[in-house]
Amino acid sequence: MKIITIIGAGMMGSAMSFPASDNGYEVHLVGTPLDRSIISRAAQDGYHETLKCRLPENVKCYQIDEMADAVRGAQLIIGGVSSFGIDWFAQSVLPCLDDGVPLLFITKGLKSDENGALIPFPVWLKSLDAGKNKSINAVGGPCISFELAGRQHTEVAFCGSDLSTLESIKQMLATDYYHITPTTDICGIETAVAMKNAYAMGVSLAVGLAQRDKDDAPEMYNPQAGLFYQSTKEMSSIIKSAGGGENAVFFGAGDLYVTVFGGRTRRLGTLFGRGYTYKQASEVLSGVTLESVAITKVVCSALKRKGELKKYPLLRYLNSLINDEPRTDIPWDSFCG
Amino acid sequence: MKIITIIGAGMMGSAMSFPASDNGYEVHLVGTPLDRSIISRAAQDGYHETLKCRLPENVKCYQIDEMADAVRGAQLIIGGVSSFGIDWFAQSVLPCLDDGVPLLFITKGLKSDENGALIPFPVWLKSLDAGKNKSINAVGGPCISFELAGRQHTEVAFCGSDLSTLESIKQMLATDYYHITPTTDICGIETAVAMKNAYAMGVSLAVGLAQRDKDDAPEMYNPQAGLFYQSTKEMSSIIKSAGGGENAVFFGAGDLYVTVFGGRTRRLGTLFGRGYTYKQASEVLSGVTLESVAITKVVCSALKRKGELKKYPLLRYLNSLINDEPRTDIPWDSFCG
Repeated sequence: MKIITIIGAGMMGSAMSFPASDNGYEVHLVGTPLDRSIISRAAQDGYHETLKCRLPENVKCYQIDEMADAVRGAQLIIGGVSSFGIDWFAQSVLPCLDDGVPLLFITKGLKSDENGALIPFPVWLKSLDAGKNKSINAVGGPCISFELAGRQHTEVAFCGSDLSTLESIKQMLATDYYHITPTTDICGIETAVAMKNAYAMGVSLAVGLAQRDKDDAPEMYNPQAGLFYQSTKEMSSIIKSAGGGENAVFFGAGDLYVTVFGGRTRRLGTLFGRGYTYKQASEVLSGVTLESVAITKVVCSALKRKGELKKYPLLRYLNSLINDEPRTDIPWDSFCG
Repeated sequence: MKIITIIGAGMMGSAMSFPASDNGYEVHLVGTPLDRSIISRAAQDGYHETLKCRLPENVKCYQIDEMADAVRGAQLIIGGVSSFGIDWFAQSVLPCLDDGVPLLFITKGLKSDENGALIPFPVWLKSLDAGKNKSINAVGGPCISFELAGRQHTEVAFCGSDLSTLESIKQMLATDYYHITPTTDICGIETAVAMKNAYAMGVSLAVGLAQRDKDDAPEMYNPQAGLFYQSTKEMSSIIKSAGGGENAVFFGAGDLYVTVFGGRTRRLGTLFGRGYTYKQASEVLSGVTLESVAITKVVCSALKRKGELKKYPLLRYLNSLINDEPRTDIPWDSFCG
């Protein structure tokens, strides 16, 4: 039986086992050191604790110590760690993988270099010794993990430097619900889907704003849509400045749409909108990893080094909230121009 | 006292009385022949029947027969008819207006010429004898009328051929909640905000799809976001093909975001998603004007004449639903490319 190995048994990594399994692959799901209890439970009866559903029949679960067994014979390795695990992946996993097997990353994020250039994770991994001879590809686009696990229609992009490799990975994973656009625009897709975490916080400001006077006030969509407008406009400009192509922002817009509807990022943005400081909001959200905060900091510090942050008034405002700078109102009028 | 006259007392036209009045203008609100009862009631006690709120103090209401009095001395005329009233406006109102007073249109829509070119309403009005010497401008962007009347933050574009005129209209209407970007990209803005009605029907297909098996099934956001992705991508391409600029699609994206959350267009898209034919859906929605249907038909027939409809698989699918062609599934895979 053909094998696809997924490293990282969080929600999104594990959800990828559904299209892989539906296409007839044996799926080897390897937990990171943080996933031990998920793997133990899933190995017993197939139930995934955080996805809150049973994994497909042909998924075999492995603890991290068994990784060598899990990757043997695999035709594709899916990297499914969170953005905070990318350095661990680069150091502890990447060197153990066969150069001949393509990698597909679901981790979203950007690093920046000393000149303020933004570097997508797959490009950064490729720049490492352990990555330089590997085919490193990535997934971007609007996808909530438990909806993918529920086999809901999902449109994503697979990006990488070689279209024929992307086509062959698409063959392995495309199903009648998982729809894949292959593209060589790594910079564009990865910048778009990383930035959407920052901007989902931005759109959610309006959710909190409406609740300032009354906890259960109805949502107001003009302010949300105004921030959505500004978000897509700023995302597009950041994508272009990173060297991305024209279509990437549409994956970013779809991803922003889906991210605004729930989860940690919306909660943080809503708290900011209600007037919480970052310190207060962090207490409410204690224990929750905030990729939106990490990406905002990285990108703002990169844009600052390039002297370009002022071109992005919404992002700059979000950064000021995260840094607990003296509170100002949302700079609505600076969006006009 | 300075005067702004609004012609058309529907929800959006009437909502414009709030920023105008807050800026110290006397507002003359003129009903079309369809607005007689709205005007009668509002003239009595200021209550607007469809906006379901009181109009500001300094609004004077006029029936259509009193239009000549209402426009006398106005510094700005706001055209607030629905897209189905545009021909009536061109014939019955435009010739009665002073060439020296700028016009601002809130009506969204496109006409097409015999070659399949799409023509925004303000451009079409300008091409008429009665319009050729007038300054004809338009509003576009995400704005729900009753939220504007509730003084919620709202981001819009004012488009027209002359920036200094746009700046002076902005001066009349900008408030601390109504935020205005002046732009000369008439084609881009008008195409974007007209097309969003068609694509809001498209995104709503996924709302109905989720309800096929169960009326109160939870919403699924991956499918909605997949359609949102495709919608913004197709909108951008149509905007470019109409000669619009790059930023217009972001107003379209914001407007699409706000339109998906409610109203007639969402209802029609949801019914289509649930499997209703157009005939069945029309019966459910009887009496409701469907600008989304009108714009889809106009644009698809224009694109067909140019041989370009196949480049827009979602729009083509929506057109097939409206024309009650044999039912097929949403062409998800055709969005990949």
